[in-house]
Amino acid sequence: MRGLWFKIIRLLRNHPHFQITLMTADRKAGQSIESVFPHLVTQDLPNLVAVKDADFSAVDAVFCCLPHGTTQEIIKSLPTNLKIVDLSADFRLQDIAEYEEWYGQPHKATALQKEAVYGLTEISRREIQSARLVANPGCYPTSVQLPLIPLIKSNLIEVRNIIIDSKSGVSGAGRGAKEANLYTEIAEGIHSYGITRHRHVPEIEQGLSEAANSKVTVSFTPHLMPMSRGMQSTIYVEMAPGVTTQDLKDHLGNYYEHEEFVVLLKNKEVPHTRHVRGSNYCLMNVFPDRIPGRAIIISVIDNLVKGASGQALQNLNLMMGIPENLGLDCLPLFP
Amino acid sequence: MRGLWFKIIRLLRNHPHFQITLMTADRKAGQSIESVFPHLVTQDLPNLVAVKDADFSAVDAVFCCLPHGTTQEIIKSLPTNLKIVDLSADFRLQDIAEYEEWYGQPHKATALQKEAVYGLTEISRREIQSARLVANPGCYPTSVQLPLIPLIKSNLIEVRNIIIDSKSGVSGAGRGAKEANLYTEIAEGIHSYGITRHRHVPEIEQGLSEAANSKVTVSFTPHLMPMSRGMQSTIYVEMAPGVTTQDLKDHLGNYYEHEEFVVLLKNKEVPHTRHVRGSNYCLMNVFPDRIPGRAIIISVIDNLVKGASGQALQNLNLMMGIPENLGLDCLPLFP
Amino acid sequence: MRGLWFKIIRLLRNHPHFQITLMTADRKAGQSIESVFPHLVTQDLPNLVAVKDADFSAVDAVFCCLPHGTTQEIIKSLPTNLKIVDLSADFRLQDIAEYEEWYGQPHKATALQKEAVYGLTEISRREIQSARLVANPGCYPTSVQLPLIPLIKSNLIEVRNIIIDSKSGVSGAGRGAKEANLYTEIAEGIHSYGITRHRHVPEIEQGLSEAANSKVTVSFTPHLMPMSRGMQSTIYVEMAPGVTTQDLKDHLGNYYEHEEFVVLLKNKEVPHTRHVRGSNYCLMNVFPDRIPGRAIIISVIDNLVKGASGQALQNLNLMMGIPENLGLDCLPLFP
Amino acid sequence: MRGLWFKIIRLLRNHPHFQITLMTADRKAGQSIESVFPHLVTQDLPNLVAVKDADFSAVDAVFCCLPHGTTQEIIKSLPTNLKIVDLSADFRLQDIAEYEEWYGQPHKATALQKEAVYGLTEISRREIQSARLVANPGCYPTSVQLPLIPLIKSNLIEVRNIIIDSKSGVSGAGRGAKEANLYTEIAEGIHSYGITRHRHVPEIEQGLSEAANSKVTVSFTPHLMPMSRGMQSTIYVEMAPGVTTQDLKDHLGNYYEHEEFVVLLKNKEVPHTRHVRGSNYCLMNVFPDRIPGRAIIISVIDNLVKGASGQALQNLNLMMGIPENLGLDCLPLFP
Repeated sequence: MRGLWFKIIRLLRNHPHFQITLMTADRKAGQSIESVFPHLVTQDLPNLVAVKDADFSAVDAVFCCLPHGTTQEIIKSLPTNLKIVDLSADFRLQDIAEYEEWYGQPHKATALQKEAVYGLTEISRREIQSARLVANPGCYPTSVQLPLIPLIKSNLIEVRNIIIDSKSGVSGAGRGAKEANLYTEIAEGIHSYGITRHRHVPEIEQGLSEAANSKVTVSFTPHLMPMSRGMQSTIYVEMAPGVTTQDLKDHLGNYYEHEEFVVLLKNKEVPHTRHVRGSNYCLMNVFPDRIPGRAIIISVIDNLVKGASGQALQNLNLMMGIPENLGLDCLPLFP
Repeated sequence: MRGLWFKIIRLLRNHPHFQITLMTADRKAGQSIESVFPHLVTQDLPNLVAVKDADFSAVDAVFCCLPHGTTQEIIKSLPTNLKIVDLSADFRLQDIAEYEEWYGQPHKATALQKEAVYGLTEISRREIQSARLVANPGCYPTSVQLPLIPLIKSNLIEVRNIIIDSKSGVSGAGRGAKEANLYTEIAEGIHSYGITRHRHVPEIEQGLSEAANSKVTVSFTPHLMPMSRGMQSTIYVEMAPGVTTQDLKDHLGNYYEHEEFVVLLKNKEVPHTRHVRGSNYCLMNVFPDRIPGRAIIISVIDNLVKGASGQALQNLNLMMGIPENLGLDCLPLFP
Repeated sequence: MRGLWFKIIRLLRNHPHFQITLMTADRKAGQSIESVFPHLVTQDLPNLVAVKDADFSAVDAVFCCLPHGTTQEIIKSLPTNLKIVDLSADFRLQDIAEYEEWYGQPHKATALQKEAVYGLTEISRREIQSARLVANPGCYPTSVQLPLIPLIKSNLIEVRNIIIDSKSGVSGAGRGAKEANLYTEIAEGIHSYGITRHRHVPEIEQGLSEAANSKVTVSFTPHLMPMSRGMQSTIYVEMAPGVTTQDLKDHLGNYYEHEEFVVLLKNKEVPHTRHVRGSNYCLMNVFPDRIPGRAIIISVIDNLVKGASGQALQNLNLMMGIPENLGLDCLPLFP
Repeated sequence: MRGLWFKIIRLLRNHPHFQITLMTADRKAGQSIESVFPHLVTQDLPNLVAVKDADFSAVDAVFCCLPHGTTQEIIKSLPTNLKIVDLSADFRLQDIAEYEEWYGQPHKATALQKEAVYGLTEISRREIQSARLVANPGCYPTSVQLPLIPLIKSNLIEVRNIIIDSKSGVSGAGRGAKEANLYTEIAEGIHSYGITRHRHVPEIEQGLSEAANSKVTVSFTPHLMPMSRGMQSTIYVEMAPGVTTQDLKDHLGNYYEHEEFVVLLKNKEVPHTRHVRGSNYCLMNVFPDRIPGRAIIISVIDNLVKGASGQALQNLNLMMGIPENLGLDCLPLFP
């Protein structure tokens, strides 16, 4: 996850309200950021310090980009006046037992868990505004829940047999040096992974179940794409009796009409991941299926922006009471 | 489709029974193959001639790689003693009306259509052996039908709500110079296309309907991947009552037990397109879904080999009564 | 070149001084920008109009992104109060004869040519500030001249036997649909092109000759890389007698010390194109060669930003008397 | 280097004379090859054993794909009746002192070094035929020496100021899991590495010096490309007085006239790495430079075939007295 650092630094670079005053990294303490990311050579940034040596007195808000499992204790130790956006999975699951089952370890901050707000911005804006600790959503759950939650809440689709075929660039896996992420293993090939047991499953089901007011079980298969950034979820659903794809489009169009970052495409326009590269947008559209009564919903995000650091900044802007899009209004980088 | 030329030439290069004695190309007549494909500089091959000037007297068999629509008349004009494998879509659909609806033009060789055998080798081996004209299957239909037809024939899966999410490299689109296929439009991004109206739909439904003995309608969504070769179909199915994913595995394992090119992977091994790159293999496996009663079937092929020229050569070997794998026993190219 | 449109729109999007009030495109007149570039769906931009129908009354400055050959006459026809940055090659060569030789057509605005200022910002800042018409440099010439001109001016390197081996992403070629730029032709392979006769040669030699006060002839070989953006020039030079690579480093370090966008890397750090992706930076460094008396100079830019639209905006900022970096201070997009 | 295994297995697969009877791998001893390379699932291959447990009684010849430094002792311990092709760098440098300087460790088999033949097939065919131990050349040295040695031997080019700008796919780095080789670090970007101190430098200089009968020092800068396979060397040379590029072409054309795998392209055809992908070919051509008296020589190979396993098999065929091209006559895989 340490790669997320850089994405946040990039977004904060021109932010009119925030200044980076502290950067921690236990294993790299004492180094300059430039020695870790040489392309930051042109930036003035504080040197890295260990968490235990950090002086939080000049800090108002924190982005936490630690691996799950180590995050809970560290956040528990932070001064309670700090606003925190946590980009790990450690506070995303409200059900402690579910966390412990999927992550295979005890939850170390169960009291904080109750306080944590799940930060899917456009869905939970009000709760986020008054939150102190926001659990920033995973990338797959963001791409899946943004289109599905409004449709489920309004009973426009059935909650049984929701089939989610997601495709992601490899950057989600971080900069960890695993053989599976080598160029030669990824370029010019695709494959499914984590079939039925990816850790984003409980997070997706939590959101959909809450929207449905009943337990929802989904089919979720992620696929690794030969690209660095970008994520698409192709979602196959049954519509409720009498509902048409136009009804789905109308509802999503209305629901997101005043949103800057979530956009329903017009007509039959197909969302492409390259249309959101490097930006905080989520583009979506709905298509009729050949099988009567079914619809195909497609959503795309940049997994590193709306799927991670961008949504994190959007949430922090909200928590600080400043305009939600500050630092986020850049257009996609194409090509 | 003209790119298919080269793939066939590549496969025939060391073939112990076939020799290339004639190559036609109306627009390039008179040129050497080397001027079209400079990497064939090292090969001795006949120059290109126009079809109307071609001398078929020394020819026993023909691969036809023309665009659909132009193929029917040309094949009709060929000497009737020739064995023909047609790689276009012109003879794949047995229902003339369906052809005309999906391709928007009249069928010009309806008599020949009756004679044409659909060349999904492992499924229709006996018919292919005695055929004179084989319609070589499309790439998507090959990847979809190989796993589904045996399961449908044995009533192990329901034929309703079969959802096929396919992913393909861009080479299927040929070497036509379209903006959509430029490097800058394809690299580092993905998108769906032809949603519900891709021309491989009727071909898939024809094969599944025949296996089911009833009209089958599928959900089929192809996706364009940032890679040159390779194809994966992720297929979401409902199992028949009481059937388990192990039953599906057992049946496919038995069905393809003695096949060289169709391989069911062991245990939970996931098929990767890079494991079949440049080879005639189709790898597949079956996984339980989180939703009870459902299964996820994954198959991968090289769209240019088993999905096109490789299966074409496999078929011609069969038609000529020589070993089916001649010229096809090369291992995948990795990386 | 039409792709350059979008890059400029992207940069202007948050510009505090500029607003897009007019966009022309003869072949697309009457269309919305969104229909050409669907990822601009979220922007409010004027519709496209034909040049002949354009109303320039509310326009102060123009970016001209037309193909060479058509640009001279159109710029000649524009109101003379407009500031113009021309991104074509039409006004880059001061010697009319040289233009006509390399571009194979008569120059149609020879009077304007005298007025045009070659816009290599860090080298010709003063002339650009007072210019009305700036010829924006080509991408290769930018990457080559930024390191070489200061060294030649100070007689630190010999002007004979300068060998430039440049590598570029394919986006420089625009969105024209040529077979050579298809994904399948570009991915996973490299090749040289335009060996000794690329049209950026006279532009490079013009700048170096002016710096040297004598005619300079260079060896220049461009290579096409399997990537969309990015450019590296690896330049092999002989140093003047007694000069060391440290002297070259010191001189470049001093020359660009106060520049925001041109950065000499420290120590032995190697410039990577990915460190400038999507940004206006030029990174460079100097290395000793194994052959005594020689040095290796490496510079990298994003060919679409510092090599095109970014430098164009930098120039227009200068021409308008506003801070040079407005709209340009975004960090590289990595990965 | 362990990735080289697979490439050799691929080439041996259909070899009419060789059968794989033993495969060693200390860290993977006891495993099946399929568990390491799942795409070999369809092959019958012996299980992996540790070197110390290997039974060489049924073995005639060995490919050694170990890291440098460990190779010398192991080869010293092998039965002396075995023919050995060593793909490491351990026996490439005839000068022990030079080996120890560049590799930073003592040579552990100096007696064997004297026996080892440097296996640049087309240059040293006779010595290879009677060799017991062949040091297979590095990839860069292969691409550089094949065009330069004949020209230097005939005094057609000067040996001073030879400038070699090489570009390689990342596969040469093997399957080691280094951050630098991750997909996100490699895709869509390029950079130089090992400037002036790459370990292939002494190997190149050894070959050129021998051809020149005098010590040659070259400028050699390798660049990492965003592709898995492929290598190009762009070589900038001064011609001897009175020599023309046509003289260079004529000489290379004659020198390689009867070679199957080394091909001088005609006219101004530019070698592309994609034209040799997956094949044992080396394509080359010569171009006049703009600077009078200079020439540009371009050569391309697949770094994993002619630059490694392909040349290794070519050498072993020679050593065994069987046709040199057995197992190697496959055409490039394109796209």
